[in-house]
Amino acid sequence: MRIEIICTGDEVLTGKIVNTNFSYMSQKLEDVGLSVYWGTTVGDDREALLQAFKLAAGRADAVVVNGGLGPTVDDLSQEIAAQAAGVELVLNEEWLVKMEDFFTKRSRIMPPNTRKQAMLPSTAEMIDNPIGTACGFALDIGKARFFFTPGVPRELRRMLEQQVIPRLLARSGSPATIHLKRFHSYGLGESHVDSLLAGVEELVPDGSVKLGFRAHYPQLETKLTVRGSDMDDVQRKLAPVQEEVRKRLGNFILAEDDQTLEGVVLAELTKCQGSLALVETFTSGQIAARFGHLPGAEHVFRCGTVVRDPIELHTALGIERLSLTELNQDVVEAVANAARIRARTTHALAVLIDLDEGADRIDLGGTIWLAIATEGEVEFRRSRILGGREWVRLGAVEMGLDCLRRYLQGLPVVERIDFEKT
Amino acid sequence: MRIEIICTGDEVLTGKIVNTNFSYMSQKLEDVGLSVYWGTTVGDDREALLQAFKLAAGRADAVVVNGGLGPTVDDLSQEIAAQAAGVELVLNEEWLVKMEDFFTKRSRIMPPNTRKQAMLPSTAEMIDNPIGTACGFALDIGKARFFFTPGVPRELRRMLEQQVIPRLLARSGSPATIHLKRFHSYGLGESHVDSLLAGVEELVPDGSVKLGFRAHYPQLETKLTVRGSDMDDVQRKLAPVQEEVRKRLGNFILAEDDQTLEGVVLAELTKCQGSLALVETFTSGQIAARFGHLPGAEHVFRCGTVVRDPIELHTALGIERLSLTELNQDVVEAVANAARIRARTTHALAVLIDLDEGADRIDLGGTIWLAIATEGEVEFRRSRILGGREWVRLGAVEMGLDCLRRYLQGLPVVERIDFEKT
Repeated sequence: MRIEIICTGDEVLTGKIVNTNFSYMSQKLEDVGLSVYWGTTVGDDREALLQAFKLAAGRADAVVVNGGLGPTVDDLSQEIAAQAAGVELVLNEEWLVKMEDFFTKRSRIMPPNTRKQAMLPSTAEMIDNPIGTACGFALDIGKARFFFTPGVPRELRRMLEQQVIPRLLARSGSPATIHLKRFHSYGLGESHVDSLLAGVEELVPDGSVKLGFRAHYPQLETKLTVRGSDMDDVQRKLAPVQEEVRKRLGNFILAEDDQTLEGVVLAELTKCQGSLALVETFTSGQIAARFGHLPGAEHVFRCGTVVRDPIELHTALGIERLSLTELNQDVVEAVANAARIRARTTHALAVLIDLDEGADRIDLGGTIWLAIATEGEVEFRRSRILGGREWVRLGAVEMGLDCLRRYLQGLPVVERIDFEKT
Repeated sequence: MRIEIICTGDEVLTGKIVNTNFSYMSQKLEDVGLSVYWGTTVGDDREALLQAFKLAAGRADAVVVNGGLGPTVDDLSQEIAAQAAGVELVLNEEWLVKMEDFFTKRSRIMPPNTRKQAMLPSTAEMIDNPIGTACGFALDIGKARFFFTPGVPRELRRMLEQQVIPRLLARSGSPATIHLKRFHSYGLGESHVDSLLAGVEELVPDGSVKLGFRAHYPQLETKLTVRGSDMDDVQRKLAPVQEEVRKRLGNFILAEDDQTLEGVVLAELTKCQGSLALVETFTSGQIAARFGHLPGAEHVFRCGTVVRDPIELHTALGIERLSLTELNQDVVEAVANAARIRARTTHALAVLIDLDEGADRIDLGGTIWLAIATEGEVEFRRSRILGGREWVRLGAVEMGLDCLRRYLQGLPVVERIDFEKT
């Protein structure tokens, strides 16, 4: 099935906003085994919209249109859809009632221009939007089925997942059930993981498991898209493959599906009724910022100390001044211990960075001194990352959180990663 | 002049990466007074590329193509450009020599497949890429001039600004010089600023100054695009308008052009040989993370204390435990003072947040208690922001940094903003 996406709106066309809706939609469709063949972006312009709809109608089987469903005069999707399909706009009573309800519930008067949002092409199938006043709709233009969706990201997401994708799958004749399994890892590059996982798809010989990746440094997402006749069939096919992925990537898998690294760390600490103190230097609060604001972190995260010069840890944590002039294993272990004792926590993580001197450049590096302290023991890791200030900073944040995750899960804290140079 | 953008590549089409190149290009063209009329996204697919080039050639005056200039087999831009233009690919000796040079300078052997990057359509004008192995090129297809640019963002940026935009401006017959002036503000919404600035464009009656906005919460960027015969002419036209913008937005302008809020704060503190201590609660290190890693911050930023429960400030800063159980002006002022004294800094900023109870929701709010302490005085600000956990957190980070900026610049720290509810 040939699918196109048309994104509309001056804000997107002029680059005022980055078009994350496009990548979101395309990714979601890929995840269920549907491929987008063509993407078009046009502004709030009658001529361009009409041309875009006609071109897509002539070459695609299905088209997802995003945006232009609002109440203002520059929201033109319904009008141009009707024109392209050669039909009239008619009032959709069902949606009008829903909108009036929407405003009544919020003790507001429905603005008159909102009525426009209930005017749909006469041949359209209305698509519900439970969280907004812009309903979606589907209709045929030429040989293609068009699906119109709202531009507000959270409204789009809900409508795409709950309403549009099932309709697209039904049209594509794909098996009823498609499931996406995701593994998040840190420390192995995409090509390395690709080679580690060579052949896992063939564990299910009928080709119904597809392997893919999405790299966003410092993490990598490994994806398995599984097709089956129903969820039981999907789970049966997925089981041996996910087992094999877990075995091959081992300790590097830090989370699965909707879990996050910081969420896993929080869950592990919560489980053991632990509490956490942090010490950071050049990461400058970014480790705390990943963790400290999470719901539930108020019971676990106790205190973070952020300095640029380790010498300040003399005042902040009472470490002997002289020992802070040059970082080494003893110093960073003492820092983690002192942070733990001062904040009366079960765990403390210290990530101290010796950044190379000089202006930022692609081969500027940093040495990361990392220690995790508990009452009984201290774990230590030293690493060197190259790639410029920002790269070092991002890498150190991830390494700090991931080492803590490994420690809490009883895995080795020190295991060589692809991004380090030592 | 009708301009189109064509983005190529499977990674962009499938949503594996968000297409920031499109918004970047579109924005840059807008900034010099050129408008993009149509955007197309296609994958690394011969048929789709050829169709996209032909469609654009039939309706546009100029087309910027991004991506597909690499050395691998799925980089097809040169090949399909030649096909669409009906010409042969020929070796560009000049670029081949440059590439060999590129590798020699880096003590590397040029991989054989790289040679492909010097094969250009015979009628193409080569466009230099001083920082990569993918040269750009321009050629006519149909009635349109096509400009081919590399997908690597930093290579694209340099080529677009230095090579493509001047050529587009020359073709469009626009005045030789176009200049973009930018003002960054925090606290006023886009429509508010729009109404405050009503009529400023008319201070230059010939229409050569254009006002625009780019909102990225919590900041707003106000843009003046000025056209002139040369830079003197531009400056002459800009002078009265920028004076008026500065007057009307007043204390809300936190930075101009490439400056950032955190950069301005750092510059002010550096100028007065100041030093900074920070205390944060629910922002969880995000204020420190905006500031502490900047080049030069090592001389200014001394210590940040991050807690979730203010009670922890008893241990961390020696504040009386009982006083921390309920936030008020006295407490937050005492916290800022204690942080300043403990870290021996000239300035301290404390941002403590009382977050509403319960699950995240659109009307969940937070009360922000903010104090700035110096040796001689303490400034205080209290504010309430609604909009969910993330909105409160982002708003509090910005408010903290902006109040510090105001204090350092001798402006009132307390001035009502559009985003607060008190």
